[in-house]
Amino acid sequence: MRYELYYWPEIQGRGEFVRLALEEGGADYVDVARRRGYGANAMMKFMASERAKRAPYAPPFLKAGKLIIAQTALILHYLGPRLRLVPRREADRLWAHQLQMTITDLVKEVHDTHHPISTALYYEDQRPAAKRYTGEFWRHRVPKLLGYFENVLAHSRGPYVFGRTVSYVDLSLFQIVEGLRYAFPKRMKRFEKKKVPRLIKLHDAVAERPRVAAYLQSERRISFNEWGIFRAYRELDG
Amino acid sequence: MRYELYYWPEIQGRGEFVRLALEEGGADYVDVARRRGYGANAMMKFMASERAKRAPYAPPFLKAGKLIIAQTALILHYLGPRLRLVPRREADRLWAHQLQMTITDLVKEVHDTHHPISTALYYEDQRPAAKRYTGEFWRHRVPKLLGYFENVLAHSRGPYVFGRTVSYVDLSLFQIVEGLRYAFPKRMKRFEKKKVPRLIKLHDAVAERPRVAAYLQSERRISFNEWGIFRAYRELDG
Repeated sequence: MRYELYYWPEIQGRGEFVRLALEEGGADYVDVARRRGYGANAMMKFMASERAKRAPYAPPFLKAGKLIIAQTALILHYLGPRLRLVPRREADRLWAHQLQMTITDLVKEVHDTHHPISTALYYEDQRPAAKRYTGEFWRHRVPKLLGYFENVLAHSRGPYVFGRTVSYVDLSLFQIVEGLRYAFPKRMKRFEKKKVPRLIKLHDAVAERPRVAAYLQSERRISFNEWGIFRAYRELDG
Repeated sequence: MRYELYYWPEIQGRGEFVRLALEEGGADYVDVARRRGYGANAMMKFMASERAKRAPYAPPFLKAGKLIIAQTALILHYLGPRLRLVPRREADRLWAHQLQMTITDLVKEVHDTHHPISTALYYEDQRPAAKRYTGEFWRHRVPKLLGYFENVLAHSRGPYVFGRTVSYVDLSLFQIVEGLRYAFPKRMKRFEKKKVPRLIKLHDAVAERPRVAAYLQSERRISFNEWGIFRAYRELDG
């Protein structure tokens, strides 16, 4: 099966969680909007198409044969067993999916650090709110959310959330650490070793996996930038 | 199977989407924290319990035999086929789950109309941001999100997202309309008939279903109030 991923071609964004799974799973896939001569316009056209009776609300979405699947966590839930990135038992699949949905919640809050009022406004037009939001985010939300995953890893005994077997959840947690380091280098440095050592070990274990390492070195990995979820605004780094 | 729902006993909140499914599905269930002498403390204790190796991040969560399932959309994905509240085909189950996850996104945005900066702060301490957020929410987000569901209903030909068969997604959309009417009576009145007539028909069809109607009249249905997701702050109603 050749999978087709539809996502914005210029950013990691939410699509990156899917890209990491496709890469680690050794999937045959096309990152459609990044193909020469295709781009985001054709993706948007596809979404709006009248023929698409079950049109996705937003990218990313995955075409798998006749199926079109949107919502990052759902794409991963679908791909998980097919790419051997989740154990087979139903209870394990549900657990992975539940963790991934909590990562989705976290990603939304990361996004809101620079856009707390509206995505229809520029960052510059919501800067005071962004500063205040970000302060609260690091005071309350990061400790609570990352602390939750740290506790999950304490129970699994690591390095991964299912112990020794890697899952798509681990790839996403790797990306969370990468992103927070990019967007908030000072805050994250102060936080990470003291508060979430198991999460950092997980990050390092994922980074060393041959397929992930090869992907990160490749041109397929888009660099972080100021259009994605994780943005490095110095004034928000406290 | 007797299901156990764990959720805050004083509010509709996210738990209400599950309650509606349990009620319409005719499930045998206990709303645990609402039992006399139980309450939210015991729920929190359960969550923090060391024995709970796979502790939920937050309520609501459902106990189904030995399984503990958190995240509203995942609970509904699990209950759907068991309560005959979703068609059996995999493509249909995925589609319902995807729509429900988009409802989750909308619910978070509704919550942020009164708490755009932080849940750790009182509404009164983020009132100017809340006003601005709410303005943008009604200008851009409500038309886009509810418009998306309106389009889904145009394709399904209604009254429900799967046509003539009700699903848990419809119950949740009913709750969205109920909640927006409670929280923003003036804004919703201006919006609903002109912009989302199909969604309003869906709402009315759900409200007339005998089990839903009986539930809404019962003491099991908690009233809307100023602690839940949907809150009626007059100054936010434009």
